[in-house]
Amino acid sequence: MTKRIKIKKPKIPKIPKIKLAHKKIQNDVPGTLTYTGSKEQKHVTVDLIDYSPSIHKNVTVDDVSQAFNKKHPEEISWININGLSDIDQIERLGEHYKLHPLILEDIVDTSQRPKIDEYPDYLFVVFKMLYYNDEGVFMNEHISLVLGENYLITFQEADGDVFDSLRQRIANAKGRVRNAGADYLMFAIMDAVVDHYFTLIETMSDRIEALEDILFSNTAEQDITQDIQELKREVLRLRKAVFPFREVVNRLEKIDSQLIDERTITYIRDLYDHVTQVTDSIDIYREMTWGLMDMYMTTISNKMNEVMKVLTIMASIFIPLTFMAGIYGMNFDHIPELHLRYGYYYLWAAMIAVFLGLLYYFKRKKWL
Amino acid sequence: MTKRIKIKKPKIPKIPKIKLAHKKIQNDVPGTLTYTGSKEQKHVTVDLIDYSPSIHKNVTVDDVSQAFNKKHPEEISWININGLSDIDQIERLGEHYKLHPLILEDIVDTSQRPKIDEYPDYLFVVFKMLYYNDEGVFMNEHISLVLGENYLITFQEADGDVFDSLRQRIANAKGRVRNAGADYLMFAIMDAVVDHYFTLIETMSDRIEALEDILFSNTAEQDITQDIQELKREVLRLRKAVFPFREVVNRLEKIDSQLIDERTITYIRDLYDHVTQVTDSIDIYREMTWGLMDMYMTTISNKMNEVMKVLTIMASIFIPLTFMAGIYGMNFDHIPELHLRYGYYYLWAAMIAVFLGLLYYFKRKKWL
Amino acid sequence: MTKRIKIKKPKIPKIPKIKLAHKKIQNDVPGTLTYTGSKEQKHVTVDLIDYSPSIHKNVTVDDVSQAFNKKHPEEISWININGLSDIDQIERLGEHYKLHPLILEDIVDTSQRPKIDEYPDYLFVVFKMLYYNDEGVFMNEHISLVLGENYLITFQEADGDVFDSLRQRIANAKGRVRNAGADYLMFAIMDAVVDHYFTLIETMSDRIEALEDILFSNTAEQDITQDIQELKREVLRLRKAVFPFREVVNRLEKIDSQLIDERTITYIRDLYDHVTQVTDSIDIYREMTWGLMDMYMTTISNKMNEVMKVLTIMASIFIPLTFMAGIYGMNFDHIPELHLRYGYYYLWAAMIAVFLGLLYYFKRKKWL
Amino acid sequence: MTKRIKIKKPKIPKIPKIKLAHKKIQNDVPGTLTYTGSKEQKHVTVDLIDYSPSIHKNVTVDDVSQAFNKKHPEEISWININGLSDIDQIERLGEHYKLHPLILEDIVDTSQRPKIDEYPDYLFVVFKMLYYNDEGVFMNEHISLVLGENYLITFQEADGDVFDSLRQRIANAKGRVRNAGADYLMFAIMDAVVDHYFTLIETMSDRIEALEDILFSNTAEQDITQDIQELKREVLRLRKAVFPFREVVNRLEKIDSQLIDERTITYIRDLYDHVTQVTDSIDIYREMTWGLMDMYMTTISNKMNEVMKVLTIMASIFIPLTFMAGIYGMNFDHIPELHLRYGYYYLWAAMIAVFLGLLYYFKRKKWL
Amino acid sequence: MTKRIKIKKPKIPKIPKIKLAHKKIQNDVPGTLTYTGSKEQKHVTVDLIDYSPSIHKNVTVDDVSQAFNKKHPEEISWININGLSDIDQIERLGEHYKLHPLILEDIVDTSQRPKIDEYPDYLFVVFKMLYYNDEGVFMNEHISLVLGENYLITFQEADGDVFDSLRQRIANAKGRVRNAGADYLMFAIMDAVVDHYFTLIETMSDRIEALEDILFSNTAEQDITQDIQELKREVLRLRKAVFPFREVVNRLEKIDSQLIDERTITYIRDLYDHVTQVTDSIDIYREMTWGLMDMYMTTISNKMNEVMKVLTIMASIFIPLTFMAGIYGMNFDHIPELHLRYGYYYLWAAMIAVFLGLLYYFKRKKWL
Repeated sequence: MTKRIKIKKPKIPKIPKIKLAHKKIQNDVPGTLTYTGSKEQKHVTVDLIDYSPSIHKNVTVDDVSQAFNKKHPEEISWININGLSDIDQIERLGEHYKLHPLILEDIVDTSQRPKIDEYPDYLFVVFKMLYYNDEGVFMNEHISLVLGENYLITFQEADGDVFDSLRQRIANAKGRVRNAGADYLMFAIMDAVVDHYFTLIETMSDRIEALEDILFSNTAEQDITQDIQELKREVLRLRKAVFPFREVVNRLEKIDSQLIDERTITYIRDLYDHVTQVTDSIDIYREMTWGLMDMYMTTISNKMNEVMKVLTIMASIFIPLTFMAGIYGMNFDHIPELHLRYGYYYLWAAMIAVFLGLLYYFKRKKWL
Repeated sequence: MTKRIKIKKPKIPKIPKIKLAHKKIQNDVPGTLTYTGSKEQKHVTVDLIDYSPSIHKNVTVDDVSQAFNKKHPEEISWININGLSDIDQIERLGEHYKLHPLILEDIVDTSQRPKIDEYPDYLFVVFKMLYYNDEGVFMNEHISLVLGENYLITFQEADGDVFDSLRQRIANAKGRVRNAGADYLMFAIMDAVVDHYFTLIETMSDRIEALEDILFSNTAEQDITQDIQELKREVLRLRKAVFPFREVVNRLEKIDSQLIDERTITYIRDLYDHVTQVTDSIDIYREMTWGLMDMYMTTISNKMNEVMKVLTIMASIFIPLTFMAGIYGMNFDHIPELHLRYGYYYLWAAMIAVFLGLLYYFKRKKWL
Repeated sequence: MTKRIKIKKPKIPKIPKIKLAHKKIQNDVPGTLTYTGSKEQKHVTVDLIDYSPSIHKNVTVDDVSQAFNKKHPEEISWININGLSDIDQIERLGEHYKLHPLILEDIVDTSQRPKIDEYPDYLFVVFKMLYYNDEGVFMNEHISLVLGENYLITFQEADGDVFDSLRQRIANAKGRVRNAGADYLMFAIMDAVVDHYFTLIETMSDRIEALEDILFSNTAEQDITQDIQELKREVLRLRKAVFPFREVVNRLEKIDSQLIDERTITYIRDLYDHVTQVTDSIDIYREMTWGLMDMYMTTISNKMNEVMKVLTIMASIFIPLTFMAGIYGMNFDHIPELHLRYGYYYLWAAMIAVFLGLLYYFKRKKWL
Repeated sequence: MTKRIKIKKPKIPKIPKIKLAHKKIQNDVPGTLTYTGSKEQKHVTVDLIDYSPSIHKNVTVDDVSQAFNKKHPEEISWININGLSDIDQIERLGEHYKLHPLILEDIVDTSQRPKIDEYPDYLFVVFKMLYYNDEGVFMNEHISLVLGENYLITFQEADGDVFDSLRQRIANAKGRVRNAGADYLMFAIMDAVVDHYFTLIETMSDRIEALEDILFSNTAEQDITQDIQELKREVLRLRKAVFPFREVVNRLEKIDSQLIDERTITYIRDLYDHVTQVTDSIDIYREMTWGLMDMYMTTISNKMNEVMKVLTIMASIFIPLTFMAGIYGMNFDHIPELHLRYGYYYLWAAMIAVFLGLLYYFKRKKWL
Repeated sequence: MTKRIKIKKPKIPKIPKIKLAHKKIQNDVPGTLTYTGSKEQKHVTVDLIDYSPSIHKNVTVDDVSQAFNKKHPEEISWININGLSDIDQIERLGEHYKLHPLILEDIVDTSQRPKIDEYPDYLFVVFKMLYYNDEGVFMNEHISLVLGENYLITFQEADGDVFDSLRQRIANAKGRVRNAGADYLMFAIMDAVVDHYFTLIETMSDRIEALEDILFSNTAEQDITQDIQELKREVLRLRKAVFPFREVVNRLEKIDSQLIDERTITYIRDLYDHVTQVTDSIDIYREMTWGLMDMYMTTISNKMNEVMKVLTIMASIFIPLTFMAGIYGMNFDHIPELHLRYGYYYLWAAMIAVFLGLLYYFKRKKWL
């Protein structure tokens, strides 16, 4: 077998099994804000970016109120909240922008599935950023955004570098972004997320191949049931995040809202193609992953077959020979063969004949 | 293997296998009231709660007729019937509120699947509360409700604590509930039920992981087929309860009824998102549970492989050696080797050589 | 294991394997009447029931022509034909009521799947009654009905007791039936059939559990592949009968026909809920039945594992001991150990040590 | 086991594996006529049948041009072409009836799936006739028809007897056919094809049962993997032919064309019911066929279990006994038992005790 | 077993495992052109074909600008770009024809799934050409085309011979192509691609049969898990390419664009039939391929059964015989049988009796 480089980038440590996120608040008053995630960040920071084709301002502050200052009506405001644990700030933001209490609840409820809600003055979108963290653990980042007239508010659980390249593009006035509205900014963020999904399915493809390599290389001994199961779980989680997100993009494409420019729709349609590509691939990897279990099963059976053959050959050859030896180990008074001059050699000849006969038999059966 | 805390909260006793509920009345006149559940409660109790933003009354009575007293038109009445075995009281209630005979039949027929029926003057909703009781048995609570102008009637099979937190919210005027109509009260009840579904899928997730842990820990010997089958059955039952419930919520969202306020629709849409989250998770757990059987199969095969290897190694090593010993146990008159000075030692040398050779062979095959 | 009462009511004898009904007439002129069932009844009987809120007449006759007599326009006529083999009578009936030739063909074609056909003057409905007969064989009863202005004609293959309770209800004026039209009578018949489906899925549930009990009780030896296959076949047949029937009920609910009263629609909607309950359950039982095969497979593998362990333990312990005995059965001139004073006892000590060592090894592997 | 008559009518010879038909012409100009089937018929024959309620003419000619003669406008013309290899004649026919080149291409392309195309002046329908030929090989007959004003042209690959009974019905003026238009003739042909599908699923049902019988009868040794695979292939081919045909019938029922009479629609709706019956059955047989593989697997495992038990019992009983005999075959100077008066008999007693003990052990384990 | 010719045309070398194409650019500005394929071609060539019913010009140039020259308005221009690595030329082309930046991005993004985009002045279509290259590796060719008023631009990754036959048809004025518009040219290209898909499924059919042959021929020893897995992967890749392509054709058929002539729609509808045929076949081959794994599993199990039988027969026969020989090898002082005149012969008789008895037993069990 030719050697192939095994890519096992995301070697997942076995201890922290991540569960599918569930809503943990129970029997709570609907509209009550409780951050359900696990990324308690001491310091919530707010990135304020105001831009127009000609202007670009970028400050990072501690208090969301600073975002409420008057600004030039032509400028686009991007308010990015890092960290969801400071309920108070989010409530003040909600008050200022007149966000519905249910929106605020969904912003901090990390188990909320991807969705889009249309309100008269703004659009509310929830989706998931999935990534392997530095320890290789499969992580879930809950992202929500509110698109209003000339402003976009984004919420993430923790400081991330997802939006970095976008921020630089705005700073450098690279691409269309500075000349387009807040709707294009929203598209650009979602596009970055979809690009990230592509790297994830790339990783999954690599892991499936690594497992196939283990299965195809006959020498491998390790029990990979657990790895396959882990992979299944991740494929299912990715699926759970991406399929509703595709619905979000689809509805965004068909939406009839003055917030979204005609020209941006073309880009969103393109985005929809990309998400569909991701979902297509997920379904393929799902089938491949499920198939791995069957392959593993045949591999085990093949090995058992080999073990059984060795046993059968050894036992089938030596048991008859031992019997023959046993015969002439008997103590009967009259065993004529024992007294033959070359009896011992005749027996050896017979034994070798039996041995060769059985060998030939197994050869013909292709067991040797 | 690192130790993980096994969560087995709902250790289900093996004896009472709960069947999927079936309608047991046969060839009966449609509209005949027969309570088909098993929770015969001697005493049917009725909770009467009347409230408005400023007023709150709460009494528990024995006779449903006490609910028919005149009340202030601004007040919302919540009539909660605990226990369905007293057909007579339910019929009187039905008469007073002019409920269709088929509604009454569905209220007491515990096998009725979740549904919503629209009548000119009221909405009728049926759904299921699923929970593990104190003995860990998976229970089914049949709940129905009638939403009318300014009143909500709820029916449950037995006294439960499902609505307790809601009752307290009304008493303490916490949240929106006191300021909203009967439609919001209905939403709040359904929201509590969905919150409860989340705890159920949390429990299922724990049980699947507990079973996976047993499968991954090689030492485990117990036959877990039965546990997997039990889990399958519960996943299917949950599915049967939640999927039609999602349809109910969906229709509620789209309904065109003056009984449901525009503002409540927003909450119901949010509820729909939550139920969809539950159904998504159920489908994932379904796949995981079905996959457990395959994993178990490979585990069994892996163990058999190990057993076979031990047998093969032992037999393959000692059968040839026994044969060699047998040779020199023969009584031929002329076996020259027997009379060699160091024949016995030569044989031992040969035997050790064979032994080491076979050992090396198995080592190279990675069976040792 | 605690004992559970095994319910095996419909113990199906293995000999008569019932095939899925197929249309057997070939290359026949469409519209030709040929009874395709196997229940040749010598005597076709006709039940004539005429009723109104105040009147009730019930006669059983031999000749369908007697049903054509003039009757009071307010009365509802229910003509029930028992037996489909007398083509002549059915043709005369068809002529009198101006039934389309294709309807007559479908009435006698027992392989016709459930359906509803709308004609200007009447509705034609076909469905299936499934039951276990006295020998426990799963039987198929082809039922069709024609609903016209003030009359209902029903056709069944053989005298059955399906409609008995309904007939009594009419006689005793119990329930709504005497005060409602022929459409309600049709609903009542279909309701009785659905009630019967419930008993069937109850039976299937019992059989699945009985098979699970056999699988879980480790001692069971019988080959249950055949029983599982039989069950699969019945689930599929039930599915084939009930799923199109649900479509029939669904279309009946949405139909725009002056033959069906507005109030009856409410009952039909309720019936639809019930049929959906049946189809939900069938799909669950289908999954459970298919899962049985996997369970059986693991059970077999578990047993083989046990067998292999016994063999491995016995062989692994005694083969080395036999080798040791073989050594000292050799006839070399010089085997010093043989002449030791306590050589025999030393060997026993060594053998016991080997024995205990292997025992400890297997104990640690949890094979004992 | 009671004997059942095994119906194995279509014993398929193993040599000619028929592939799913594929279009073989490549990169060809669309509209080029190439007969892609394998039934090269030297002589293309044309059956010309002209009929009206009172007239009936039937001739078989060699040249399609003879069909173009003037005829009475009231008469229905049925032109049946046997054999598709004479491209020239088909082109002349196409020219006369102004058929679109793509229609001509589809007529001779035997891989064309069932479909219906509406053209202003005619309808074009393609479907498949499937049958087992005399050697039991599963054959595919490509049939297409063109329905125009007062004429119907049918094309088949080879002389077949499919239409024979229909031709006789026309000759004998049996049934509706002589009094109805060309549309009814088309229906009658399609009805004959569906009737034929019924015989096919009947045959499949028989074959599935024959395979089940082999599986259930424990003695069977043959490897039926190949038969199961063959059956799967045929079920899939039947599915591929019938499912699109159902769509054809469905569209025919809903078509808005002056070529199809209102009264014929009723017949076509009935035909749709029949095809749906066939597709329902195919899906059931598909599940049954796929299930056969699982059954076979358990059968193999069960047999292996039996083999292993025999080995385990034999080895477990005789290996310890052989060891005991080995002990007293040793040549130690001092083995006291050897010199006991009844030592030999004592040993026999011990051996018999061990033998019975093991026998009891295996009995209790239910291995005997 | 009769011999069958094994067709293994595309013997795929095991080393280069081709991944499903993924978009590799990340966090890039949407609309940035980066060629993502692996076919870096030094020289991008441009084929310019201008034709009308009477004129035909064909030149191959290096620079796309030469295509922008004025031409007669009646002529159809086909501009075929071979190679996508020269971003500059593609941008100049895009500028001239006013193509949207997203179109240019999709042209060079080889991971783009098949799609159709409608723009006011042109249609943009993406699809995939799949083929086995000379080394038998399954290759992916990304093809896109822009259909405008009187011109068609096609883009392929590398020089291919896909369009050769079409070019010749234009040169020779064969078929409809010279007399029809650019829309028919587009159809002709897509038709050639679909024809190619047919050869692919033909190849897959051959490979499935080759694998089945290996499975059915009992002697085969090789592990075909890898081949089956490879086949699965290819079926899934083909599926991923063809299913969205079918959607493209479907939308093309229903499109309301002045660019597509009414007469061409008829051809596109025919094309849709052909693609559906391909997708039908893919789904069948998918099922067959998945079934191969089950077949392989039963084959392995069958072989193991055979191995076990040999072992069981050998061991069961010789272990008791060896025991018998062992008995009379013992050294008890008093073993009366040893001193019988014909004791040795009596024992042989007993041994032969045991031997024959066991032989008969195994014969009756059909293990021999």
